[in-house]
Amino acid sequence: MTSGARIAAPAIVAFIKDAMLAVGVPDGDADKIAELMTEADLTGADAHGVFRLPQYVRRIRAGGCNPCANISVIKTAPATALVDGDNGMGHLVMTRVADTAIEMARKVGVAWVGAKRSNHAGAAGVYAAMTLPHDMIGIYAVVANANHMPVWGSAENLLGTNPLAVAVPAGDEPPVVLDIATTVVSYGTVKAYKLQGRDMPEGWMIAPDGKPLTDSARSGEGLLLPIGGHKGSGLALVLGLLAGTLNGAAFGRDVVDFNNNDTDACDTGHFLIVLDVSRFLPLAAFKTEADRHLRDLRNSQVLPGFDAIRLPGEQRRLRRIERARDGVPVLPEVVELLDKLAGELNIRPLRARM
Amino acid sequence: MTSGARIAAPAIVAFIKDAMLAVGVPDGDADKIAELMTEADLTGADAHGVFRLPQYVRRIRAGGCNPCANISVIKTAPATALVDGDNGMGHLVMTRVADTAIEMARKVGVAWVGAKRSNHAGAAGVYAAMTLPHDMIGIYAVVANANHMPVWGSAENLLGTNPLAVAVPAGDEPPVVLDIATTVVSYGTVKAYKLQGRDMPEGWMIAPDGKPLTDSARSGEGLLLPIGGHKGSGLALVLGLLAGTLNGAAFGRDVVDFNNNDTDACDTGHFLIVLDVSRFLPLAAFKTEADRHLRDLRNSQVLPGFDAIRLPGEQRRLRRIERARDGVPVLPEVVELLDKLAGELNIRPLRARM
Repeated sequence: MTSGARIAAPAIVAFIKDAMLAVGVPDGDADKIAELMTEADLTGADAHGVFRLPQYVRRIRAGGCNPCANISVIKTAPATALVDGDNGMGHLVMTRVADTAIEMARKVGVAWVGAKRSNHAGAAGVYAAMTLPHDMIGIYAVVANANHMPVWGSAENLLGTNPLAVAVPAGDEPPVVLDIATTVVSYGTVKAYKLQGRDMPEGWMIAPDGKPLTDSARSGEGLLLPIGGHKGSGLALVLGLLAGTLNGAAFGRDVVDFNNNDTDACDTGHFLIVLDVSRFLPLAAFKTEADRHLRDLRNSQVLPGFDAIRLPGEQRRLRRIERARDGVPVLPEVVELLDKLAGELNIRPLRARM
Repeated sequence: MTSGARIAAPAIVAFIKDAMLAVGVPDGDADKIAELMTEADLTGADAHGVFRLPQYVRRIRAGGCNPCANISVIKTAPATALVDGDNGMGHLVMTRVADTAIEMARKVGVAWVGAKRSNHAGAAGVYAAMTLPHDMIGIYAVVANANHMPVWGSAENLLGTNPLAVAVPAGDEPPVVLDIATTVVSYGTVKAYKLQGRDMPEGWMIAPDGKPLTDSARSGEGLLLPIGGHKGSGLALVLGLLAGTLNGAAFGRDVVDFNNNDTDACDTGHFLIVLDVSRFLPLAAFKTEADRHLRDLRNSQVLPGFDAIRLPGEQRRLRRIERARDGVPVLPEVVELLDKLAGELNIRPLRARM
């Protein structure tokens, strides 16, 4: 999704807001959802921005997601809290999680805040990065809203791509923002290959017979492979236990595949750890040292076959600047889907806002 | 290191203790080091147990590691602390880190404790698992004591295998203990292949020209590959910043290669996050749910080519039971090295204790 017309970010924000208002989301909540979905688009997480809007709207209209959620926060200890999302939009739940965790970490150094009865929240990096303006470190994980990976040695998809995002402040250098699925490739990428009728490279998926699966038309029966074999599988398992089970949220066999089910509550679980840098090193000293190491890494000898060394967070920052200035590229097929949605919701089409 | 004579765990403990006493480690500290090194052997982390003793002794005698460290703990907030290891043995430093973090987490729900001026502490899983008897979750990481991996796209080894370990309590099921390097394979495994003159499979290492390197005799010039390409590289980077830089400890270009340097302080950094399960769910409810999910995963359909599904922590528990009963297998070559050391230190040889 890197080609296509450029649409100004404020137009996307306004379009998403109108759609959310049309399905009964209160005004302030619609603003917040629109802002965070567009943030995913601005930072390059194209599969987690406005592209998701039709699915979100469909689930709200079908009763699978609550447009008027009453999100509640229970502080269970000075450094821990559990947020009950009341089946609301994940973006709203995670905003409460982040606000709570940042406030608690400022007081006691670190906070671990979990959430249950939530929903898909879009790009993981967005939530880890919410800590950066506060000069804090963020570690975020979530139970994915569908199981596309088996545990290592299994032929049954009982694990999700359960992503992990980590944000670390820096000084003059771009902050480090790592946002990785525990699978070799995201399921979104597989879907994109299927749409385009392209063969997948070996190493992404296998069939339930254990053989490589490269025909993307057959991806529905495939098993995504974890990064590092048993290592990525173990990582998806522990992140699932911590983001799901520990919060009393869905994991494993209980996960609702939100691609094929619009009516059942997902009971998505997330967690965010927030750590106050200044409890370990004076902030300026940490930033100076982080910058020095990041420069050492970027300026190290480039491996033949690469044009440059890119650190996690660099591309994100460049894209953010460039897309805020020039607009977000949205594929014509996506614009068409969004304007079909606009028709159904009787809101001003995106095309008319370009 | 799965064949070789079986040596009773108490004999290994006593041997390590005698060696530590001989190089000036105080009695109680020698006990603790011996216990934790043997715990690595008992749980199957053979490259991190008694096998490491000659190197530890060499560094203490050469002045690279302080046998009489005065480890200090500074609580920097209700939920955070920084431990200054005074260049002592990592096992002692990490024991203080774990004790501190568990005590703090009991009071405030979660604790993040970092350490600087420490040293190699052996098996990562041992420290994450220290939380389990307290029904807490542990997340541990460390900056490895040598750089064997480049950042993604680089030909210079400026990152270590920086391992991550996570321990999660369960009920009747074995607790989950994940202990993974961020590289496809550990450098210890590469060294074992070199010793045995075996070729490495493709995908473990590349040469600085970017081509696959399978000749283990040339592994000294090789670059270890991260799990999941840029993902494992990013993970090693953030773990290094959090375990090293944030604690004011070594990372990147500052890391001392402790294989080739016995005299300089390593300034190893670690961190341990401890989370109190009962702040999120009643303990019994969490354990019941964890058991249910672990059984679902283990009893799922086995992939052709696998004989069973093994979850992280299962093998560890089985080995612990079996080795405590039947003794720890130690290769004859290792026994020989250890008894050469016994001669130098004028302590009773291991062979005489078998």
